[in-house]
Amino acid sequence: MTQTLDVDVAIIGAGSAGMAAYEQVAQQTERVVVIDAGPWGTTCARAGCMPSKLLIAAAQAAHAVTHARCFGIEAGEPKVDGAAVMARVRSERDRYVASVLKTVESWPPSHRVTGRARFIDDHTLAIDTAAVGAPTRIRAARIVIATGASPVRPPDWCQAIGKRLVTHEEVFDWATLPASVAVVGAGPLGLELAQALHRLQVRVRLYDAKNQVGTLSSPALQAQCRDIFGQALPLTLGAGDLQVDLHAEGDRDRDRDRDRGSDGDSNGDAVRVRCPGSNAPEEHFELLLAAVGRRANVQALGLSNTSLPLDAHGVPVFNRHSLQVGSMPIFIAGDAADDWPVLHEAADEGRIAGTSAAGFPRVQKQPRRTRMQVVFSVPQLATAGQGFEALTQAGVDFEVGRVSYADQGRAQVMAVNQGALEVYGETGSGRLLGAEMVGPGAEHIAHLLAWSVARGDTVQQMLSYPYYHPTLEEGLRTALRDLRQALQPGPQSDTLDCGLGG
Amino acid sequence: MTQTLDVDVAIIGAGSAGMAAYEQVAQQTERVVVIDAGPWGTTCARAGCMPSKLLIAAAQAAHAVTHARCFGIEAGEPKVDGAAVMARVRSERDRYVASVLKTVESWPPSHRVTGRARFIDDHTLAIDTAAVGAPTRIRAARIVIATGASPVRPPDWCQAIGKRLVTHEEVFDWATLPASVAVVGAGPLGLELAQALHRLQVRVRLYDAKNQVGTLSSPALQAQCRDIFGQALPLTLGAGDLQVDLHAEGDRDRDRDRDRGSDGDSNGDAVRVRCPGSNAPEEHFELLLAAVGRRANVQALGLSNTSLPLDAHGVPVFNRHSLQVGSMPIFIAGDAADDWPVLHEAADEGRIAGTSAAGFPRVQKQPRRTRMQVVFSVPQLATAGQGFEALTQAGVDFEVGRVSYADQGRAQVMAVNQGALEVYGETGSGRLLGAEMVGPGAEHIAHLLAWSVARGDTVQQMLSYPYYHPTLEEGLRTALRDLRQALQPGPQSDTLDCGLGG
Repeated sequence: MTQTLDVDVAIIGAGSAGMAAYEQVAQQTERVVVIDAGPWGTTCARAGCMPSKLLIAAAQAAHAVTHARCFGIEAGEPKVDGAAVMARVRSERDRYVASVLKTVESWPPSHRVTGRARFIDDHTLAIDTAAVGAPTRIRAARIVIATGASPVRPPDWCQAIGKRLVTHEEVFDWATLPASVAVVGAGPLGLELAQALHRLQVRVRLYDAKNQVGTLSSPALQAQCRDIFGQALPLTLGAGDLQVDLHAEGDRDRDRDRDRGSDGDSNGDAVRVRCPGSNAPEEHFELLLAAVGRRANVQALGLSNTSLPLDAHGVPVFNRHSLQVGSMPIFIAGDAADDWPVLHEAADEGRIAGTSAAGFPRVQKQPRRTRMQVVFSVPQLATAGQGFEALTQAGVDFEVGRVSYADQGRAQVMAVNQGALEVYGETGSGRLLGAEMVGPGAEHIAHLLAWSVARGDTVQQMLSYPYYHPTLEEGLRTALRDLRQALQPGPQSDTLDCGLGG
Repeated sequence: MTQTLDVDVAIIGAGSAGMAAYEQVAQQTERVVVIDAGPWGTTCARAGCMPSKLLIAAAQAAHAVTHARCFGIEAGEPKVDGAAVMARVRSERDRYVASVLKTVESWPPSHRVTGRARFIDDHTLAIDTAAVGAPTRIRAARIVIATGASPVRPPDWCQAIGKRLVTHEEVFDWATLPASVAVVGAGPLGLELAQALHRLQVRVRLYDAKNQVGTLSSPALQAQCRDIFGQALPLTLGAGDLQVDLHAEGDRDRDRDRDRGSDGDSNGDAVRVRCPGSNAPEEHFELLLAAVGRRANVQALGLSNTSLPLDAHGVPVFNRHSLQVGSMPIFIAGDAADDWPVLHEAADEGRIAGTSAAGFPRVQKQPRRTRMQVVFSVPQLATAGQGFEALTQAGVDFEVGRVSYADQGRAQVMAVNQGALEVYGETGSGRLLGAEMVGPGAEHIAHLLAWSVARGDTVQQMLSYPYYHPTLEEGLRTALRDLRQALQPGPQSDTLDCGLGG
C-alpha cells in the first residue's frame, strides 16, 4: 500500500549538508522531512574528517617516540598496539557519531524517514523503506539533494581482489592494523592515510597514476612535495594503470605476517600490485586501499525521471551562490554537489540550500567563504584563497613571495624544518590573492592567509600586523616581505627583526 | 690618554633593539657607533626566546613519549639524557648567537665599540673599554639607549645561597640537568622553565608570592590556570616571602641525587625553601632559579649626570610612538624601556628609535602594533589586543564570548583538550577588542585574534571567514558566536556546522 506524504520541503540525505539544510528549513515550516537510507550520521564523523585525524594523532604519537632521540630523550622503538590504536579510533569515532545522532534524534520523529529516495518526477520521490508506517511516496514542493559522495571502487579491482579492496569507509572499522597496505591515489585522503599507516609500522606503499602527490598546484611546491613525501614514506608516482591481482603467498611470508602480530586474514592469498608503466618492482600486500576519488551519490536518484539539467557526470547543474538547480525548486548541497568537498563548505551549502528551499520562490544568492584546503599530512599542505594554477589559468597578473621552512627559526627549534610557502599578490593593488604551503603548522598559517584574502588585505597591511617571536608565523612574514619586494622593487624598511624568525 | 670620537648617533647596546636601531641609522649616516659591553649577541638568542623554546621542545619530546600510551603506542618511560638535552640546547643556541654575531660583524669595525658606556652629560659618554685603540669618550649629537634588562637577583638570596641562585641567564649554559630546582616566580619565564624542567624529570616546585600563575588577567581564566598548572606540576602559590638558606643534606639525599644521575655540585649542601606565609612544607633543592622579574639596565648609565626626566624606577620617561625622551635628542628602545618586553616589540622600538635618532629634529610618531603576548607553557597562554583587566580598568563597555577547550573537537582528537578562550567585543560597534586564552595552539589563535583587532574586524565579519574542519580554530568560532549572542541577543543564523568542532 502506497502511503503518500505531502511536504513543503524534502531533504534527501542527513549528512553534514542535509543536517544544516534541515536546521534552516525547520525554522520556516513544520512540513519538512529528511530521508536517509542509513546508517544515519555524517561522513565527517563516520569515515571522514574526525576518524582520519584520530588515526593521524596515533601516528604522530608513534613518530614522536622515535623523534624524541634528537632532543636527547631515549625511548627505544615504539611498540604499536594495533588493537589499542584502533580501539581509541573507533571509540572516539563512535562518540562523534553518537553526538551527531543525538542532534538528529532531537528532531520530531515525523521529520525523519529511513529509506532510499528515487525521483519519479520533479516533485515526487519513491521511498524504498523497510520501516513500518513510513511513507513510500513523498510529494514535495521543494527538494534538497544532499546525498553526499562515495569512494570510487574500480570494478576490475573489486573483481580481482574482492574484499581485500577497501576504502576509507572501512578503515575506521578495523579491529586492528593490517600488516601491509597498498594505498592507491596520492590525493588528500590517500596521502593522509598512507603516511599515518606507515608511521604506525604498517608496511605501506603509496601509488599514484600521475606524477603528483598532494594538492598543491605550484610546480615548485609540487616538486618539493615529491621530494619530502618520497623520503617520508614508500612512494611510487607516475605508476600509470596498476595491475592488481591475488597471489598465493609462500609459508615464509605468512610466518613473517604472523611475527608482525598481524591479525589480518592471512589465508595464503595477498594482493599483488604491478606497475607496467614504471620500473617499480611488484609488491605484495594484505590489503589495497583505493583512494582514487569520490563520486557524487546521484546515480540511484532516478534523475532521468526529472527535467533537471545534468552535467557530464550526471550531477545537476547548479548556481554555487544559491545552490539552486536551474530555476527549479530543487537545490543541491554538500559532496553531492561535487564543488569543493570540505566539511565547512558542505555545512555552508546546506544552510544556503535550506534557506533557498525554505524561501522559494524568493531565492537569494549568498556570498561564499574564501576557499581553503588543508591536508593533514606531515608536513601539512594548505591552499588559501586562489592557488597558483587557478591564478595562472585565469590570466591574473600576480607576483610570488616565497619562504623556505628549512631554516625557519621556530621550525628548527622543533626539528620540523622542512617545506615552503608561496604567497600570491595582485600586481598594482598589492592585495593578497592566495597562497600554497607545504610545511609545519600549515593549518594555522592557512587561516591567517584565508582571512586576509577574505577581507582584501594588501601585503603592506599584513606586514603591519604583529608576528610573535619565535613562531612559525614569522616564516609567513618573510614570504610577505619577499612578495612586497616583488611587487615594489626597491629598498624596503622593516627587514630586520632578530634574524632568527624567518 | 683620552681618545674622543665624535658621531651623529651613538647606540648603547647591541641587542635586538640596538641592532634594529643601527640598521635604520646606518642608512642615513656613516657617523654612527654601537657600544656594547659584551659579550655581543642578543638576549633573545643567548638566554631568551630561542634557547627557552629549545628546552621546551625537549620537554615536549619527553612528554610525548609518556603521552603516546593514550593513543595505543607502548614506549616505556622516557630516559632523559640531561647532557644530550643540554648539548642540543647549547649547540642550537650557539648557532643562533653566531647568526646574530655574523650580522654584527658585517658592520664596519669603526661602528662597533666594545666597552661599558656611562653618561658624563647629555651628549657625552665615557667608555670603560679594554680594547686597544678604542675611544674612551664619545660625543654624540643623538643617543639611543638600548641596554636591555637583567633578571632581578634578590640580594639576600644571593648572600644566603651564593652560586646556587641562578636565573635564565645561566640555565642555557648548563652542561646537564640538575636533580632539583626551586623555581621562584610564576610569570612567563618561571612557568615556562619550571614546566619544561618538570617534564625533563628534574624535581621542581614552582613558587609564587602571589596567588597567580601566568599572565592572564581574566578571573575565570586565571582560576583555570591555577587548576591546570596545579595539576601539571608541583605549584605553591600565595607563598608570600620565601625563606631561603643552605642546609646540610644527609648521606641518603646525596645518594639519591647520585642515583638520579645528577652531575650537580652535590657537596652536601642544598637550598632549603620555606614559606612562612603558607602551610607548604619545607623542601630542599639543588638550585633556586629566580624568575622574579627583569629590571632595565639603566643603573650604571650615569643618568644622574644628564637632564633626562626619569620615572620612579630611574628609567627615562619617553613617548612610545617616537621613543623620544622628553624633547631631547635621546631615545630609548627595547627592554631598557620596560614597556612591553617581547622580541618583536623590541625590534620595532629599535627601528622607531633609530629612525627618530637619524631624522632628529624631525621626529615622527609611528604607529605601534596590536599587542600580543604568548607564554609557551602547556597549555599555552596568550593575550591579544586588550586583556580583560585593561578593558575593565579603562571603563570600556564590552561583552565576553567564551568557549571551553575541554570538549573542543580537534583538541579531543589530539588529547590536548583543556583550557578556555575569552573574546572581548565592544558593545554597539561589535568590534573585537581583545582576547585571553589558556589552551592548545594559543600561539596560533592569538595571531588570528591580534590581526582582527588590528584591522578593526567586527565579530560578524570574523564569523564570515572560513574555519577549517577539524581545527582548533573552530573553538574560536564557537567563542565568537557566544560573543555575538551577548552583543545582539536573539536567534542567530549559522549555529550548526557538524557539531564536532566547537
